Amino acid sequence: MNISVIGGDSRLVELVKILEKNKNTVFLYGLEKNEKLVGFNHVENIEDCLEKSNLVITSIPLSKDGKIINSVFTDKIIFVKDFFEKIKNKKIVTGNITDEIKQYIKKENNNEIIDILKQEELTILNAIPTAEGAIQIAMEKSQITLHGSKCLVLGFGRIGKILAKMLSGIGAKVYCEARKQQDIAWIKSYGYNAIHINELKEYLNEFDFIFNTIPHVILDKDNLYKIKKNCLLIDLASKPGGIDFEYANKLGLQTEWALALPGKVAPRTAAEYIYGTIRNLSY
Amino acid sequence: MNISVIGGDSRLVELVKILEKNKNTVFLYGLEKNEKLVGFNHVENIEDCLEKSNLVITSIPLSKDGKIINSVFTDKIIFVKDFFEKIKNKKIVTGNITDEIKQYIKKENNNEIIDILKQEELTILNAIPTAEGAIQIAMEKSQITLHGSKCLVLGFGRIGKILAKMLSGIGAKVYCEARKQQDIAWIKSYGYNAIHINELKEYLNEFDFIFNTIPHVILDKDNLYKIKKNCLLIDLASKPGGIDFEYANKLGLQTEWALALPGKVAPRTAAEYIYGTIRNLSY
Amino acid sequence: MNISVIGGDSRLVELVKILEKNKNTVFLYGLEKNEKLVGFNHVENIEDCLEKSNLVITSIPLSKDGKIINSVFTDKIIFVKDFFEKIKNKKIVTGNITDEIKQYIKKENNNEIIDILKQEELTILNAIPTAEGAIQIAMEKSQITLHGSKCLVLGFGRIGKILAKMLSGIGAKVYCEARKQQDIAWIKSYGYNAIHINELKEYLNEFDFIFNTIPHVILDKDNLYKIKKNCLLIDLASKPGGIDFEYANKLGLQTEWALALPGKVAPRTAAEYIYGTIRNLSY
Amino acid sequence: MNISVIGGDSRLVELVKILEKNKNTVFLYGLEKNEKLVGFNHVENIEDCLEKSNLVITSIPLSKDGKIINSVFTDKIIFVKDFFEKIKNKKIVTGNITDEIKQYIKKENNNEIIDILKQEELTILNAIPTAEGAIQIAMEKSQITLHGSKCLVLGFGRIGKILAKMLSGIGAKVYCEARKQQDIAWIKSYGYNAIHINELKEYLNEFDFIFNTIPHVILDKDNLYKIKKNCLLIDLASKPGGIDFEYANKLGLQTEWALALPGKVAPRTAAEYIYGTIRNLSY
Repeated sequence: MNISVIGGDSRLVELVKILEKNKNTVFLYGLEKNEKLVGFNHVENIEDCLEKSNLVITSIPLSKDGKIINSVFTDKIIFVKDFFEKIKNKKIVTGNITDEIKQYIKKENNNEIIDILKQEELTILNAIPTAEGAIQIAMEKSQITLHGSKCLVLGFGRIGKILAKMLSGIGAKVYCEARKQQDIAWIKSYGYNAIHINELKEYLNEFDFIFNTIPHVILDKDNLYKIKKNCLLIDLASKPGGIDFEYANKLGLQTEWALALPGKVAPRTAAEYIYGTIRNLSY
Repeated sequence: MNISVIGGDSRLVELVKILEKNKNTVFLYGLEKNEKLVGFNHVENIEDCLEKSNLVITSIPLSKDGKIINSVFTDKIIFVKDFFEKIKNKKIVTGNITDEIKQYIKKENNNEIIDILKQEELTILNAIPTAEGAIQIAMEKSQITLHGSKCLVLGFGRIGKILAKMLSGIGAKVYCEARKQQDIAWIKSYGYNAIHINELKEYLNEFDFIFNTIPHVILDKDNLYKIKKNCLLIDLASKPGGIDFEYANKLGLQTEWALALPGKVAPRTAAEYIYGTIRNLSY
Repeated sequence: MNISVIGGDSRLVELVKILEKNKNTVFLYGLEKNEKLVGFNHVENIEDCLEKSNLVITSIPLSKDGKIINSVFTDKIIFVKDFFEKIKNKKIVTGNITDEIKQYIKKENNNEIIDILKQEELTILNAIPTAEGAIQIAMEKSQITLHGSKCLVLGFGRIGKILAKMLSGIGAKVYCEARKQQDIAWIKSYGYNAIHINELKEYLNEFDFIFNTIPHVILDKDNLYKIKKNCLLIDLASKPGGIDFEYANKLGLQTEWALALPGKVAPRTAAEYIYGTIRNLSY
Repeated sequence: MNISVIGGDSRLVELVKILEKNKNTVFLYGLEKNEKLVGFNHVENIEDCLEKSNLVITSIPLSKDGKIINSVFTDKIIFVKDFFEKIKNKKIVTGNITDEIKQYIKKENNNEIIDILKQEELTILNAIPTAEGAIQIAMEKSQITLHGSKCLVLGFGRIGKILAKMLSGIGAKVYCEARKQQDIAWIKSYGYNAIHINELKEYLNEFDFIFNTIPHVILDKDNLYKIKKNCLLIDLASKPGGIDFEYANKLGLQTEWALALPGKVAPRTAAEYIYGTIRNLSY
């Protein structure tokens, strides 16, 4: 299969290597500065690359500002608008296509556009490196072991479930917070200590580590006030996050806001998940 | 609080004990033959009991045939129709209210009827004794240990998830089957071996134990044929079950169809789950 | 290889099947009544069988009374004395050779006798079916799930370690008792709640299940008195066991004394362990 | 209780805080440069401090060169010889008393000297932060997750056991190597894949991570040659370590030699273990 990979970060670099290994012909544009890809098929003009390919993979997510495609390993600037004008009759894999970006997508170009970050499969798998990254940060930023410590996980969604399992596997005493009774039932089933959100305040002063996965401010002034001073707070939720960071700071609490962990802590694994998800799309 | 408990099986017996322990006044009807309830407040007429109570709990599920309330520990016959005629202005907890039963429920009687088997919380919790019961059966009916054995779990819903965790915790090599890619992702996240339904055939001959949780026939003739002779098949799915039992029998495969496990293997735990769920309904 | 198997119980039956499967020629004596061995090479005279073999495997343990070889599947009586008189220049595998038995072993017969129950490898492996058997009993004899229950394991030797792991894997809250501080350190390392023997009394009233692995009476009158009434006590220790059963009985405590579990709950697995251990002896 | 703490590293700093918290009066010498101990009882002369104390705790291990007491947080130089001359009739806790150091210990001074690093309890507990530190390094130095990776642990002693448990708990596929059949039995009991040292070569090319805990060169030229190029090798064994680092380097293999992890990755936990061990010595 002929595939173009355009721009992106270290995950796309690793993805290129996986695609090659699996006997695809891969054309690269906007990745020429990455040392791991020296000797690969870099093309000069994006048109050359698009023409020859059945599948086009570009940055995941596509763009921060809606105008320029995220591209860490190039000096070139690739505009979202240009990209969607030039490309026709292709299957395109990218991520996080916002309303702003949608205006650039023209029906007459007849592309099939796949927002891979909307694939539940990938979202679940990405929780694995996110949880592992959170554990790495907890280990790096503390004076104690996770083993034997008391850890609170706020939210029992994908990341909460996997993080709780890993923390427990290392030997931490794991408490999980949830709002719905059915999540409380799941938490008990998995053998963690369950805390209903209404009881949260009573427990907050016990923890050595608190991990947040809920994307709205749950650790507000009232709650932060209860937390013991040498607790480490790690927020894994996207903006606005789950912690009132300013107030936490005032109280002298140690906080870490860790975003986009899969690409940072395990780009090769993250690339393998993207690869697997793309393959499963064809089924 | 004043509560009536009417009919039911060993779970309701245990529930009565829990209710008493938590300082409720409990009136019993249709439980007089159970030896654990000697000395409790048995009433002669169902009306006496209903009159004094805010909450009425009866058999879960309510009835097998839609006509008579399930009541293991009495010689009395309690008709569903009579029950719903006599009872007025109460909160009633029962389970599995079928269309047939619904015709007996009169709006003018002004009861609030709760089908507790429809509470997601309870369904999740009931997966725990179901999984444990399945493990008990696997231990009893085999010549080998679960530890070190190869186990396949068909379906990764509530029971599948908890059963896989327990089997793994005992030391079995756990394989889970699913149809959706997102369930495959969950299976991998939890560290089990994932088998997509399309690949199932290739693997079937490897297992020492197969547990089914899917409520339609997945182990049909074609699949049964692949399974090795000393494999033990345990079906946890309600009718029609997931195994072609007749054909399995012909092949000389050992099968067990295990239904309603919570009440059989752990009535006290099952009663505690019911109690907790009733309490949470008030929130 | 030519091997004789003489007498024994269901583990030796399974061992015969494993030996055949691994392309050995196996001669049987004293196993003719087992239906699984119909069609195998049963010999009429023990001499026929011994003559042709390099390796002789007999009952494990050899004898209960020191005089007759344990043989469940025969009407023949095989005397220990006769056996050791007839057998010459062989490698003999058996178990539990007592001082009484040793008098029958004649040096001039030039046999190499292996007491396989003295092999640390096998003792460790046998802890697996023992632990699983204990769990099966706990499930069968109780009204609650192990999941979520409070379990105490007395002694942190081979069985204690594996049982604690399995109980924890099912979802029990596991407490382990030990006397030595280094065992307490191990218990903490593995993430269980550690109880030093000196603190045992304070905790005894909390448990739903108590498993003993210590071969002397630790649950004496004083300790039994503290245990709550619906706790199930399972003793896995060989005589005299770890429970004052008579007094436990008086107190109305439910007790189970479970011995020789590997052969009872998982004879095939137990046979595989014996087979592996015999093979490793040759290294 | 009155206690002197003299010199040492961040673990002794944390130990001072724990001792204070537990209502001991603590005198410090050779720790004045640590910012966490501002406002504590620092004394000018070591004699002042010794005089007032029942118990003297000094650096663990005592000295690198046998002459000067390890003291990270001071400009003072404290000589081993001076220390043992000045101190009389005390209980002294330190670690790693070498033959060289022993010559300075005078019987007539009547001290009771405790080498706490010889306490099995502490050695076991120290395996916890060592294993966690190894995991932290593996996470930091790799492009993949530990979850789903293939990990080999060389040696199944204290660190091997705990590291295998944690790796498995994070979701790695864990293989453990051992030489003795009884260790192989333990490895199987715990549910890891067992590799006997004689089979090691066949497996070496499969791993993403190799952790060594054996204090002699097991990964020699022949073995290193088999390992795949992007495997990360982490050596936890004290000198000479278990890897031929020079040759590994030539082959382009990534290696990490991680020593003294407890003090580095979790000084507070390490201090708590020391505190607990000192307390238990009194029993």
